[in-house]
Amino acid sequence: MRMIVEMVSELKAFFHPENVAVVGASKTPSKAGHTVIANMLRMGYQGIVYPVNPKAEEVLGFKAYRTVKEIPGKVELAVIVVPAQVVVDVMRDCAEKGVRAVVIGSGGFSEVDERGAELQDEIIKIAHEAGIRVVGPNTSGIVSTPGNFTTTFFPQEKVRRGYASYVAQTGNFATHTMRWITTAEYFGVSRVIGLGNKCDVDDADAIEYLGEDPETKVIAMYIEGFKNARRFLEVARRVVRKKPIIALKGGRTVAGAQAARSHTASLAGDYAIVDAALRQAGVIRAKKYMDLVNFTKAFSLQPLPKGNRVALVMPSGAMGVITADACESLGLEVAKLSKGALQRLTDISPTWIRMSNPVDIWAAAQIQGVEKAYELGMEALLEDENVDAVIATLMLVEGHSTMDLKFILEMNRKYNKPMLITVTGDKQLFEAAKEELETQGVPVYPPLEAACEALAAMAEYMRFRSRETANE
Amino acid sequence: MRMIVEMVSELKAFFHPENVAVVGASKTPSKAGHTVIANMLRMGYQGIVYPVNPKAEEVLGFKAYRTVKEIPGKVELAVIVVPAQVVVDVMRDCAEKGVRAVVIGSGGFSEVDERGAELQDEIIKIAHEAGIRVVGPNTSGIVSTPGNFTTTFFPQEKVRRGYASYVAQTGNFATHTMRWITTAEYFGVSRVIGLGNKCDVDDADAIEYLGEDPETKVIAMYIEGFKNARRFLEVARRVVRKKPIIALKGGRTVAGAQAARSHTASLAGDYAIVDAALRQAGVIRAKKYMDLVNFTKAFSLQPLPKGNRVALVMPSGAMGVITADACESLGLEVAKLSKGALQRLTDISPTWIRMSNPVDIWAAAQIQGVEKAYELGMEALLEDENVDAVIATLMLVEGHSTMDLKFILEMNRKYNKPMLITVTGDKQLFEAAKEELETQGVPVYPPLEAACEALAAMAEYMRFRSRETANE
Repeated sequence: MRMIVEMVSELKAFFHPENVAVVGASKTPSKAGHTVIANMLRMGYQGIVYPVNPKAEEVLGFKAYRTVKEIPGKVELAVIVVPAQVVVDVMRDCAEKGVRAVVIGSGGFSEVDERGAELQDEIIKIAHEAGIRVVGPNTSGIVSTPGNFTTTFFPQEKVRRGYASYVAQTGNFATHTMRWITTAEYFGVSRVIGLGNKCDVDDADAIEYLGEDPETKVIAMYIEGFKNARRFLEVARRVVRKKPIIALKGGRTVAGAQAARSHTASLAGDYAIVDAALRQAGVIRAKKYMDLVNFTKAFSLQPLPKGNRVALVMPSGAMGVITADACESLGLEVAKLSKGALQRLTDISPTWIRMSNPVDIWAAAQIQGVEKAYELGMEALLEDENVDAVIATLMLVEGHSTMDLKFILEMNRKYNKPMLITVTGDKQLFEAAKEELETQGVPVYPPLEAACEALAAMAEYMRFRSRETANE
Repeated sequence: MRMIVEMVSELKAFFHPENVAVVGASKTPSKAGHTVIANMLRMGYQGIVYPVNPKAEEVLGFKAYRTVKEIPGKVELAVIVVPAQVVVDVMRDCAEKGVRAVVIGSGGFSEVDERGAELQDEIIKIAHEAGIRVVGPNTSGIVSTPGNFTTTFFPQEKVRRGYASYVAQTGNFATHTMRWITTAEYFGVSRVIGLGNKCDVDDADAIEYLGEDPETKVIAMYIEGFKNARRFLEVARRVVRKKPIIALKGGRTVAGAQAARSHTASLAGDYAIVDAALRQAGVIRAKKYMDLVNFTKAFSLQPLPKGNRVALVMPSGAMGVITADACESLGLEVAKLSKGALQRLTDISPTWIRMSNPVDIWAAAQIQGVEKAYELGMEALLEDENVDAVIATLMLVEGHSTMDLKFILEMNRKYNKPMLITVTGDKQLFEAAKEELETQGVPVYPPLEAACEALAAMAEYMRFRSRETANE
């Protein structure tokens, strides 16, 4: 336990540095060494930035220094974006200066050739001797919304603060996929750790840190290979008792494994074995790239379900059939509704329809109006003790069926059961509903199965947790 | 063969009626009998509309008649939206008048109760005796863009004309899912046939008609149960030699089958058996609801691949790994590039990167600029004889990587290989690219696997076709 505490305090500098040296800082807007500082400013970073550049007086308003060593006072974190062959010297400067945390954004190391691998070995040696923790090299690095901080050199807008954290053997989550999240989604992110070549800080360190992090409720990972699979699984097993880990493993097929080898030199390993090990450790295995967004959104916004019994509220019989198929094939149970709930549904519906789950709400909508039918129907289900979660598909069509969605937000505050929403009808109304609901904590998915997949991941995690508790 | 020709000419009235009686026409905008005529007008219907309503003089500018029998001259199609108990009388009027095609939109028949089933039996009897073909009852019915025609009573905008046709045991595709297609997608639709209770025209009739229809290139179906599975499979087998059929079967699980029973009284049957029969008939089995949109889009816009060898152009190594995994698990082969193509890729890239498929285009983008790198890279792949299709993920980020996408449209005209696009980065740039490319024939998908799934469906169809040809 002492080790964990130590490690957590060591890694803190990556997420909440009081000051940061940017080595390779540049006045030229197109350069990485400019963007990284501009990004920090856009994130609202409050610490001191020390641009390091032998030829500049200042960068973006911050006084520049010729070397790390010339910076006055203690430097907590250095972000290095100079060419690979210069990084070794910079590392020596950092060691002398007593810097204890470094993010190396530069590429050109073990991912490229023998010479790069040698440079990387030298960096590791210096780091070990001086007790420097290194993220990278070859990484866009860190995003930390609680620290208003980022080390990415990819143009980044301010990231919404929230409880989802990413650990990835790719820069995507601090670059273009983060752009997708900030422009297409409304859930918040806490930390991103792009591991790069993992010459020091690796997956296991990252999840250990995030496991202790009160700002992280769910951890999503993209993994190609492990530096130390045994240690990772050991840490993962501990962390998932506290919070869910969702992992997408790259290199599950022969073609994927070959691609992973040329991407990160990772040996993918036999996927069946890796998959079994992850499952045993309680890690939720994602199958698709956007699962890392879709699942994370549900976990970070909604409470966990007590079990896997789901009630489905659908605007069409066919959508009921299809979501029931999806839920059952994903391991969810289409809940057998209580008599009380069935009675309430029958009371709001025309006499000719026999209510069951999935609930075809459109008959009730003819009598109650669309909004009232959804409200009364969803309420009956959220109050049914046989129901652990509700998935509702709203039919939103301009001039035909629009709703004031406040009732969903009110139910979300009132009931402690996960509620996931999908929308059919007009795309622009889907987008509007997504913004309104997600910014206030209710996840919204495009039609039709993504919501079922996300809920199934939550139920899988709960199954794991109850098994663990039973074993204790 | 004579039978097919006869059937096709019989069903023509549903899609290209020279005139149409709307029984239950209404002056009240919220009523089905009003919306159905308003929809016809929005679709640009050029034929004569005869509103039938004993109490109205005119509806939406058309002179109204008290009964079908009072309409002067021949009536080609009747759309009936009066209450169930009145439909029998209307059918008798239609029989007397010599109407040979009827769409019954009204519900309240076999889907509701015994009394409804009896009414439906009477309708069938009248139709058989008078030689009337019936679509429905309990259906939003028909959309036909080549006929500028629709029978749906759900508010509908003008539908873009194209080559994708839908046959569904649900009204969704002439109602809210059509709204989704018209507001979120840019591919065109040819015909929609909502089968409803299938008291006469069924799945087999529908695909037989669409099989002969020069306006239909691909048929997408939602099926809960068959009236006559043997006949359907027989017809399907014949049709898929000419054009692909994609089918989503509802009721694949116990929960789904139960829901299907209460939705359309369909006995879902053992899904493994149904699935095997569909596969044997050459039908592509969709797994998710939006597959019916995503697959159909690719089939209707792009040429078929000659084989299953795909080249992947990706802006990140991780996305290369993930799409390679997706492609291989879906039965596609990640193409082994020819020496010539590899050389061309190497020539445009920095020396340190070793090119292979998936192609990490970002290295080349550093030298060539983003647009040029994609253009040269995709061109090399489209000209590689080892490549049957290209999936490219564009990274589009405001102020960082935007492109003039004309080169994609030019390549689309020049090369006869399917090209499917996905986008990572900024959502609004994804939306803009989707509009620009899809309206001109190149399908665009959200990140990341949907494009692989659509291409895999195309390759599956080609495999089936070549097997058939080999057997002939």
